[in-house]
Amino acid sequence: MTGQQTDNVVTAAFLVIGDEILSGRTKDKNIGFLADYLTSLGIDLKEVRIVPDEQPEIVGAVNALRAKYDYVFTSGGIGPTHDDITAESIAAAFDVPLNLDPRAIAIMEPHYAPGQFTPARQRMARIPDGADLIENKVSKAPGFRIGNVHVMAGVPSIMQAMMDAVAPTLKTGAKMLSETVAADMPESRIAERLSAIQDAHPQTLIGSYPRASDGKFSTQIVIRSRDEAVLQAAVRDVAAAVADLSG
Amino acid sequence: MTGQQTDNVVTAAFLVIGDEILSGRTKDKNIGFLADYLTSLGIDLKEVRIVPDEQPEIVGAVNALRAKYDYVFTSGGIGPTHDDITAESIAAAFDVPLNLDPRAIAIMEPHYAPGQFTPARQRMARIPDGADLIENKVSKAPGFRIGNVHVMAGVPSIMQAMMDAVAPTLKTGAKMLSETVAADMPESRIAERLSAIQDAHPQTLIGSYPRASDGKFSTQIVIRSRDEAVLQAAVRDVAAAVADLSG
Repeated sequence: MTGQQTDNVVTAAFLVIGDEILSGRTKDKNIGFLADYLTSLGIDLKEVRIVPDEQPEIVGAVNALRAKYDYVFTSGGIGPTHDDITAESIAAAFDVPLNLDPRAIAIMEPHYAPGQFTPARQRMARIPDGADLIENKVSKAPGFRIGNVHVMAGVPSIMQAMMDAVAPTLKTGAKMLSETVAADMPESRIAERLSAIQDAHPQTLIGSYPRASDGKFSTQIVIRSRDEAVLQAAVRDVAAAVADLSG
Repeated sequence: MTGQQTDNVVTAAFLVIGDEILSGRTKDKNIGFLADYLTSLGIDLKEVRIVPDEQPEIVGAVNALRAKYDYVFTSGGIGPTHDDITAESIAAAFDVPLNLDPRAIAIMEPHYAPGQFTPARQRMARIPDGADLIENKVSKAPGFRIGNVHVMAGVPSIMQAMMDAVAPTLKTGAKMLSETVAADMPESRIAERLSAIQDAHPQTLIGSYPRASDGKFSTQIVIRSRDEAVLQAAVRDVAAAVADLSG
């Protein structure tokens, strides 16, 4: 999609950490959730990466993304088992120590019966130096924020609760407004008109999304802008083009 | 997840191209499909990226991924509209010209009524120099392969048909075998045992995946190896540990 960025844009990337997504065993539910969530806040999700539970891959991705975007969100790999290596990988990315955190212990320890705050569970209280905790209303073990990176659980219900805790701390930009015009035709029929409309409305982003159903093609045309009047002017032109070509 | 790679490993990355996934408007269905598909072929999907319809982002991601993995697969952005910029971006990544391709024209033109193979539709016949075509049984307009990069449509039914056309051309490695042991307990209870079992079976990858349902936690333990005997030895130890801790 072509178009121009306006001022007051806040950008983000999402890093999904986990072999289970890459093997196909688990079907991701967090990407769609976070995309909707950030869009509704007025933050532009600009990139997603999925990497395996391997420290060099996590470190490389975190450092690339945190340098490029206003915010980075991660999910996965902060549990109690040996294959959860996100906390140490984030500490390595920021080159800071990872230690048992008294704040995290104070939250977690009362949650367990006496003697049950085992070494494995204490693993979840290891937080990189200089990080703030992210509250976990579902199962206590916190996430954390260090620099512009927000480290969250992979279990969708916990990740979603953590985003609710994080959201009030985020700066947000002008919301991207969106309208959809449905066209009961293949997109190739309207392509040239859409290109001309995009050129005439440079402050919008016009996307064309084909659908195939029982061998029949239809098209959803999505017009986006941060300005309502600009948006509606382009929507009128798209709707007129669809009406013309349907006749 | 920790563990060792064996010989005979073939790796891949998947690049999803499209603003509509990043905005949340469209929920991706291709990542889970391709993860399953490649795993079943004996190809390890090692990384996924989602980038917007912006040429510098596509070029940067394609060039990073094709240098790092045996294969790259892309989906999205090869349609007839102005916002479909994948073909020119791939040509730019490989620094080759992008021209109307006689092979693609020969496939597409008979599909349309006389005079209906319009300039917009001809856009879909632009193929980078040196590329092979990928057959599209659903809607004719082909994908293409250049170097180790396979460029496919974003519409799931078309992408899946293109993968079926591509699969016979791919080299494959030893398949990753997988078994799952269900544990009706939070993963923190079994974490220390799993860590010891992982250490005792270095040719396996043991992953622990918590689930939350109605506030109750259970765990799926996934053991993977390319060797059946190695796999089963580790599965026995995991099952024994689960039985111990359930008692």
